[in-house]
Amino acid sequence: MTKLKSWIPVDITSDFSIYNLPFGIFSTENRSPRIGVAIGDKVVDVLKVYNLGVLSPKVLKKEIFDNLFLNDFIALGKSVTNEVRLQIQDLLIQEQSLLKNEPDVLVEQAKCTMHLPVRIGDYTDFYSSIEHATNLGSLFRDPDNALLPNWKHLPVAYHGRASSIYVSGTPVIRPNGQRVPKGEINPVYGPSTLLDIELEMGFIIGKDTEMGESISTGRTSDYIFGMVMLNDWSARDIQKWEYVPLGPFLGKNFASTISPWIVTLEALEFAKIEAPKQDVEVLDYLKCERLNYDIELHVDYTPNKGIVKRISVSNFKYMYWTMSQQLAHHTVNGCNVRVGDMMASGTISGPTPESYGSLLEMTKAGKHKIVFEDGMERTFLQDYDAINLSACAVKNDIRVGFGECKAQIIPAK
Amino acid sequence: MTKLKSWIPVDITSDFSIYNLPFGIFSTENRSPRIGVAIGDKVVDVLKVYNLGVLSPKVLKKEIFDNLFLNDFIALGKSVTNEVRLQIQDLLIQEQSLLKNEPDVLVEQAKCTMHLPVRIGDYTDFYSSIEHATNLGSLFRDPDNALLPNWKHLPVAYHGRASSIYVSGTPVIRPNGQRVPKGEINPVYGPSTLLDIELEMGFIIGKDTEMGESISTGRTSDYIFGMVMLNDWSARDIQKWEYVPLGPFLGKNFASTISPWIVTLEALEFAKIEAPKQDVEVLDYLKCERLNYDIELHVDYTPNKGIVKRISVSNFKYMYWTMSQQLAHHTVNGCNVRVGDMMASGTISGPTPESYGSLLEMTKAGKHKIVFEDGMERTFLQDYDAINLSACAVKNDIRVGFGECKAQIIPAK
Repeated sequence: MTKLKSWIPVDITSDFSIYNLPFGIFSTENRSPRIGVAIGDKVVDVLKVYNLGVLSPKVLKKEIFDNLFLNDFIALGKSVTNEVRLQIQDLLIQEQSLLKNEPDVLVEQAKCTMHLPVRIGDYTDFYSSIEHATNLGSLFRDPDNALLPNWKHLPVAYHGRASSIYVSGTPVIRPNGQRVPKGEINPVYGPSTLLDIELEMGFIIGKDTEMGESISTGRTSDYIFGMVMLNDWSARDIQKWEYVPLGPFLGKNFASTISPWIVTLEALEFAKIEAPKQDVEVLDYLKCERLNYDIELHVDYTPNKGIVKRISVSNFKYMYWTMSQQLAHHTVNGCNVRVGDMMASGTISGPTPESYGSLLEMTKAGKHKIVFEDGMERTFLQDYDAINLSACAVKNDIRVGFGECKAQIIPAK
Repeated sequence: MTKLKSWIPVDITSDFSIYNLPFGIFSTENRSPRIGVAIGDKVVDVLKVYNLGVLSPKVLKKEIFDNLFLNDFIALGKSVTNEVRLQIQDLLIQEQSLLKNEPDVLVEQAKCTMHLPVRIGDYTDFYSSIEHATNLGSLFRDPDNALLPNWKHLPVAYHGRASSIYVSGTPVIRPNGQRVPKGEINPVYGPSTLLDIELEMGFIIGKDTEMGESISTGRTSDYIFGMVMLNDWSARDIQKWEYVPLGPFLGKNFASTISPWIVTLEALEFAKIEAPKQDVEVLDYLKCERLNYDIELHVDYTPNKGIVKRISVSNFKYMYWTMSQQLAHHTVNGCNVRVGDMMASGTISGPTPESYGSLLEMTKAGKHKIVFEDGMERTFLQDYDAINLSACAVKNDIRVGFGECKAQIIPAK
């Protein structure tokens, strides 16, 4: 990969290197929400760049960038969105760049409010980490038969709630609901006592399909615009009682948090890595090159008034089912997808306890405590605790990261 | 109820009496999609009525009616939408009505194309018919313990797919997918061989809530704009293999069909009836007046090149969990709802085989054949078969119906 350097100073620890250039929706005190691109600790105001007349694809219009969401931009297709990204990259590299004389084009990230980047039509959550599925099967069913018979034949998934997906920074209110206290058979009502996290990555659909249309594994990259981090908050006590036979519902749909910047699939190209071998032969429509992305994932836990601790280091490369397989499966029945839909990985756990993606797994369903530096202890989330997810692909000098995906828990209403 | 009569001739068998006046989105050869109200075999072009200056609420604007969806109209709130409906009712009753001189305001339904009435943000499907849940539990688990322990404590539900909800008349393509042939353990790929219907009703959310906000059972009618019919097509072979542990996914999300006209809750007021008694005491947040709606439901089956047969007569009044309880439960954890969201009943089965709402139940999972007048036989849907649902509340001379909810099955791709 050619070495690139921006005239904007970018710290080597920054997630937003010149190789990244993710898209998001930002506002400032004086500017309504619009499309931005992150570079170092700045945001490029893409509407202003457009107004300079330096973006060449002819289909572009002012309304595309002066927009509450990225959907209209993404819908222009990769030939356009990739070109815009590369043109912005050029403008951030050229010593004679026009942008240098336009200080207004660059805004301090610290002064920006970030918004939900896309209007999410439908949200699907997969269950594609074999370590996570095995851990859960062992905890709740049978360690010798932890995976259900279908698990290695298809990427299991369910539909989540799109309305309650919030951008990083939005506080999460502890949900009320029904749970059955230990040893009893009837439910009681009250705030969830087993509030958990789920470390996930999501991908954003970049192209519509029609009813009846399937996306083959070889064509999926055309349909994946980019990726975000996702914390799929889970109330385990509510979930446990409600989930048979139709799956999780109120235990999940009170809130999910995503990171504000969508990192394009093209920016992650350099991080491609072989995916885990699949030891059961899959049906033809799920066969494909075993390609994954090497993205290190972190969970940082700050207990109420306590000291932050990194409680997990996982990696997207562990995924047994790849995004390609997920999307091929999702559409094999002709289910249509739309620009802005989000499909998520499910909790990403690695092979060791240090790489588990949920408190349920880390604490073995509450049996083991997480101990913090100052002696504080936790099993599940308490009020005013905060979680931050981070994710980064690094190779040689190239660093492409996802920023923050954080939220604090506030008490139930 | 005061007897009302329109100067437009309305057949006594028409679903669209002067008492009904449901809202929908229609287009004709010369007119782009816009809001309409059904009366008899006509559609009132509400944009044209607005342009006459006879609708008084001040918040109304042209763009509200010249719209691809009803969402913006519904979002104005019931004080406005009810007033508009009653003003249109007046205009259709008054002998001196302005509309009489505006022939262009009334369009033949036969010349209209109906569109999806709302942009559906999220779609939730409940499982609230005790007869249906009992039948399924008996068929697949244990007739003596047909209901799972949570069923009488909460209205079980799952999230469905919003992108694949189509308006009545849209053909449904038979889905491909994985199924496990009888006696085998590995799945094969191909068109579903057990394609089924689900007779349901859905309600459309009329008012947004914020994260953390719950809707108490006493306040739900403010949040329910109206109702539609829903056929939630189901591929039982795909569903059976995929659904553990996270619930139905590809077995359902290829297509759902809804009726084009949203019948307002106010138009159904006269059809209120006592709901079935609940024999397990529910938690306080689910307690409320046991009110349901007496809406007769029909399933008409036309086999390929065959003669139509009415295969089921059911009723919405059988619902064990009411819409009020469903909405209170859905939001008890603070999950936000948005104007245009759809929540559906789940399959509505009555107490006898003649009132079952799915082929699975009617044929006892394929054991008993449905025999048509000309000797044709069916267990599950074959290609080019068509299903039409209808629904109607009738009391004395008042008739409020839902029109058609139909689709034909076309072969898998």
